[in-house]
Amino acid sequence: MSGNPTACLLVIGNEVLSGRTQDANIKFLATRLGELGIPLREVRVIPDVRDTIVDTLNAVRPNFTYIFTTGGIGPTHDDITAECIAAAFGVPWEEHPEAMAIMGAHYEKTGSEFNAARRRMATMPRGATLIPNAVSVAPGFIIGNVYVMAGVPRIMQSMFEALAPSLVGGAPVQSRSVHAVGLLEGRIADGLSAIQARFPDLDIGSYPYERPTGNGVALVAKGTDAARAEAAAEAMAGLIRDLGLVPQFGEPAPAP
Amino acid sequence: MSGNPTACLLVIGNEVLSGRTQDANIKFLATRLGELGIPLREVRVIPDVRDTIVDTLNAVRPNFTYIFTTGGIGPTHDDITAECIAAAFGVPWEEHPEAMAIMGAHYEKTGSEFNAARRRMATMPRGATLIPNAVSVAPGFIIGNVYVMAGVPRIMQSMFEALAPSLVGGAPVQSRSVHAVGLLEGRIADGLSAIQARFPDLDIGSYPYERPTGNGVALVAKGTDAARAEAAAEAMAGLIRDLGLVPQFGEPAPAP
Repeated sequence: MSGNPTACLLVIGNEVLSGRTQDANIKFLATRLGELGIPLREVRVIPDVRDTIVDTLNAVRPNFTYIFTTGGIGPTHDDITAECIAAAFGVPWEEHPEAMAIMGAHYEKTGSEFNAARRRMATMPRGATLIPNAVSVAPGFIIGNVYVMAGVPRIMQSMFEALAPSLVGGAPVQSRSVHAVGLLEGRIADGLSAIQARFPDLDIGSYPYERPTGNGVALVAKGTDAARAEAAAEAMAGLIRDLGLVPQFGEPAPAP
Repeated sequence: MSGNPTACLLVIGNEVLSGRTQDANIKFLATRLGELGIPLREVRVIPDVRDTIVDTLNAVRPNFTYIFTTGGIGPTHDDITAECIAAAFGVPWEEHPEAMAIMGAHYEKTGSEFNAARRRMATMPRGATLIPNAVSVAPGFIIGNVYVMAGVPRIMQSMFEALAPSLVGGAPVQSRSVHAVGLLEGRIADGLSAIQARFPDLDIGSYPYERPTGNGVALVAKGTDAARAEAAAEAMAGLIRDLGLVPQFGEPAPAP
């Protein structure tokens, strides 16, 4: 995957850092970006604090092909992502004509007031292009290599699927897993290390699991070449058989 | 909360960045650290890559009172957290006598081989002190202001509760919430901003929710003074009543 473009995600919001909210966006974006051949390389969860957002954005921007952000683009006082991104890029934060038109038409149609708080959601860094929002109208936006999305998972997912066709991906990440109940990491570590050495183009991982039907370990091979990932999975199944256990291909069933 | 100690969490593991695993450690630690008066200020999710772990650790160490890490301390080749932390501190990575004794006694008692892979879990930065592991024996460790824990949630939680009494906390974070079905952020943004201005010592947040029983918004006041948080919640309830809606104190029921 070394030739692929890369992604970094900034989860912006006090609610994740306080434990109020269980983040669901990391897993969704990690999975979808992998499918598009844009592996997620880092995530930072940061608070709704202006200096932190500006400094973090400018620290990560040069290091990844794509930066995605979730959260902080609503109408309330703690929604400061858009103005911070304008500050990071050194451009004005101003009403975006196209966003104003889309939102103005929506509130006119629904007979609601297009008040200052709602106009705030159409206020963006100069030069931004819009990400459509099929769920709740107020758009996300793109500036440079930064893709700014809502924090509510259903809205974020809708925005991501709208922008996904515009992303330039690499080879999709292929994953093959094999697992066995009763397997212990301490008994296969040497063999697994040897398989990693034979497949340096793959990421070989080992993940213990606990299930009512029995505890075990899942072994995972990831890379951009499906045949190589399959060959590594077969080799890992061989390690399991050598211990007198029965390998099962695929991931264990989710915990209940 | 400005006088409180602070925490940063490093989630170390390819499995979260690939979307294979839904992280559960952020929410647990965010909640528990808040209760201890050590607000979590940043989380970074990083891969099992040596340079990334070393550089990230050294970047965050000076900026927070406490650094916690989860993941990468098992027996397999991709478990490189301990050696990276030794490198970050510039100390040898070597067998820890007390960890060797604990694990050696365990494997002798269970009649399992204390092989090289398992000894790897007793190999730590010189000068580390142990964090007991009541679940699966292999200990975590502390060096400087860095607390190194397992990634499996049940083990991590056990390690955290074992070390928690040794943490020097500040005033516990107090949270008071009020919510209403039918509430729209765009209608209360101005009033909420005014309340934030009246309570500059609190973090006032606004979080839309979707439930089968109706969509709405939860308003949350956080700070170290319970009476202030309660007063802010009462003021927010007033905003809701002004719109002809019925405020409900506390958080909405979890999504089904």
